[in-house]
Amino acid sequence: MKKIAILGSTGSIGTQTLEVVRTQGDLQVTAMAAGHNIDLFEQQIREFRPKNVAVWEEKDAFDLRTRVADLGVKVHYGMDGLIEIAADPDSEILVTAIVGMLGLRPTIAAIQSGKNIALANKETLVTAGHLIMPMAKEYDVQILPVDSEHSAIFQSLNGDRMNKIEKILLTASGGPFRGKTREQLEHVTLEDALKHPNWAMGRKITVDSSTLVNKGLEVMEAKWLFGVELDQIQVVVQPQSVIHSMVQYEDGSIIAQLGTPDMRLPIQYALYYPRRRPLDDRRLDFAALGSITFEQPDTDTFRGLPLAYEAMKAGGNMPTVFNAANEAAVALFLQKKISYLQITEIIEDCMKHSTFVDAPNVEQILATEAQVRESIESRW
Amino acid sequence: MKKIAILGSTGSIGTQTLEVVRTQGDLQVTAMAAGHNIDLFEQQIREFRPKNVAVWEEKDAFDLRTRVADLGVKVHYGMDGLIEIAADPDSEILVTAIVGMLGLRPTIAAIQSGKNIALANKETLVTAGHLIMPMAKEYDVQILPVDSEHSAIFQSLNGDRMNKIEKILLTASGGPFRGKTREQLEHVTLEDALKHPNWAMGRKITVDSSTLVNKGLEVMEAKWLFGVELDQIQVVVQPQSVIHSMVQYEDGSIIAQLGTPDMRLPIQYALYYPRRRPLDDRRLDFAALGSITFEQPDTDTFRGLPLAYEAMKAGGNMPTVFNAANEAAVALFLQKKISYLQITEIIEDCMKHSTFVDAPNVEQILATEAQVRESIESRW
Repeated sequence: MKKIAILGSTGSIGTQTLEVVRTQGDLQVTAMAAGHNIDLFEQQIREFRPKNVAVWEEKDAFDLRTRVADLGVKVHYGMDGLIEIAADPDSEILVTAIVGMLGLRPTIAAIQSGKNIALANKETLVTAGHLIMPMAKEYDVQILPVDSEHSAIFQSLNGDRMNKIEKILLTASGGPFRGKTREQLEHVTLEDALKHPNWAMGRKITVDSSTLVNKGLEVMEAKWLFGVELDQIQVVVQPQSVIHSMVQYEDGSIIAQLGTPDMRLPIQYALYYPRRRPLDDRRLDFAALGSITFEQPDTDTFRGLPLAYEAMKAGGNMPTVFNAANEAAVALFLQKKISYLQITEIIEDCMKHSTFVDAPNVEQILATEAQVRESIESRW
Repeated sequence: MKKIAILGSTGSIGTQTLEVVRTQGDLQVTAMAAGHNIDLFEQQIREFRPKNVAVWEEKDAFDLRTRVADLGVKVHYGMDGLIEIAADPDSEILVTAIVGMLGLRPTIAAIQSGKNIALANKETLVTAGHLIMPMAKEYDVQILPVDSEHSAIFQSLNGDRMNKIEKILLTASGGPFRGKTREQLEHVTLEDALKHPNWAMGRKITVDSSTLVNKGLEVMEAKWLFGVELDQIQVVVQPQSVIHSMVQYEDGSIIAQLGTPDMRLPIQYALYYPRRRPLDDRRLDFAALGSITFEQPDTDTFRGLPLAYEAMKAGGNMPTVFNAANEAAVALFLQKKISYLQITEIIEDCMKHSTFVDAPNVEQILATEAQVRESIESRW
């Protein structure tokens, strides 16, 4: 039995991770953490019987303790609880399926406890890649990407680890608003933004996909994961989401990973790497598909992507500013307090007015995040 | 310096192999053989200075000896000459860039001398895969595919050697006559058949591409190279020749190799495997490409492919019958002695009327070839 811990078990990646656990039969969940969906979390605890669990709020922890009193499970809460789950002594691998910068400190705790990381929390690398990657090396742990694009790159690199990457071709669906003008985007609603053409994902990442902020975060993630320069990463819009990403080598040869849009595949690949396991019978049918199309991203309309490159080029705490501003702005958009185009306007504004910190440590990263969030919350 | 020998140096693959040698600077040609283009061969000998060379005809050998008398090179001829080059004691790897069943005995000689094989002579595996693959294992030599499709599969397998292949998706351009009906094919000329939409290749293989016989031969080659069953190989028509082939694993994940249509890439990959070397700056431009399209092969119109599956299913000497009948028929077509549709009609007829031999040895394979060729030559 391979022992795993999960942060964010009730979210989209979390529930799909548990589906993989259910199907495979040789994975054991020793610890898991969830946010606020206590009903679903109780069900998951009853089904998978971890020894340690955590929720975010203290009151939810009290409630849950009563509910699962018959199971002998230890219930933690808050950031300490997340860290407890991340560093759970029984687990070998941590699935970081938690959204946002909350994932940073638990991921560090897991690395320092020698766990391999199945990384679905891209904010960790976006804000602290310069700390995380050397730390993973120091503690000799693997960072196994779960994002479909990064898993594709990882799979495409697998037979070529001794060869130099010339370019990473990071594919993007272009989101639900591909082809629209900025004028048209003035009137889009939350409901429009939540309709992703191919992938079923959480609300925050779905909005991020529509603004291309998500692709920007992925560019930063790829830079850290695969040790390349920013100008070696090219975003290619591929609306059918069939090619999940590609790697180009010095001989011009491109290795790509393709498949149906199904997150269970990268989850499973990360959990069993480098071995593959069967996964039901949904397969790509190329004749039925007919064609795969490509275009350049429209960076004039979708400012999320060029702002991400700008933040990454600036370095220091600027990717944290970019990410924190986006997290706060998307939260406001989800509450219908700001319009769609204001999301990237707020990011741009924050990037202009934040104090630059070079090579920030964890405290400085978290302080930058708090400042940006408070500044946005105070204004809207 | 890596020492190589080449069979077929004046052909399409041969000249491109020499281009790779010219560019890389750390490959040394110790031996090479050519057919009838003595002028070009003399130039090549002067440039690359092999110690052993061979031509097909005795008279060409005499002529060449006089021409290169100043170089101290040994000139062989005939099948013995080919075998001499293949088993050249100085070389580490043999590039079999020779067309047709002529390649069988020299390839066996090379394997038995412990050379790795950069295989561009698919007929060897088509007719004698059941002998060649165990022999390569016995002599511990690598069979490195040079065909663009098989190189793509090989590259796609590289990171997954421990994982089970679910399916090989062998791509096909569909050739110059894709979309045509059988009636339309009644009137096509040799000149029409020699216009391949994407690849610049020799005449015989260009005709084979148009009939899909080449794809049929590639299916057989893939079966032997990658140890899969026939029903695990699916031909996918992909007219832009951008995806060179793909491998699907048990989790549904597909790894593909893409690139411009440039044979120097698979040649170079075979010669330096598993390391890649830089190759100029021609790169795929996805936005400029716009789309990659897919369709099923039209097996009613293009009989070459279903006949190949039939031959392979029958096994024994039937793939040899298929291949020998095609070689003889295409030779007649190139001499304008038969019409285009007669090529596959002749193959079908020979397959019906040949004597079946189970698990044929080399002599039986060569005897089958001779019988088929003579029977066709006597009738046309």
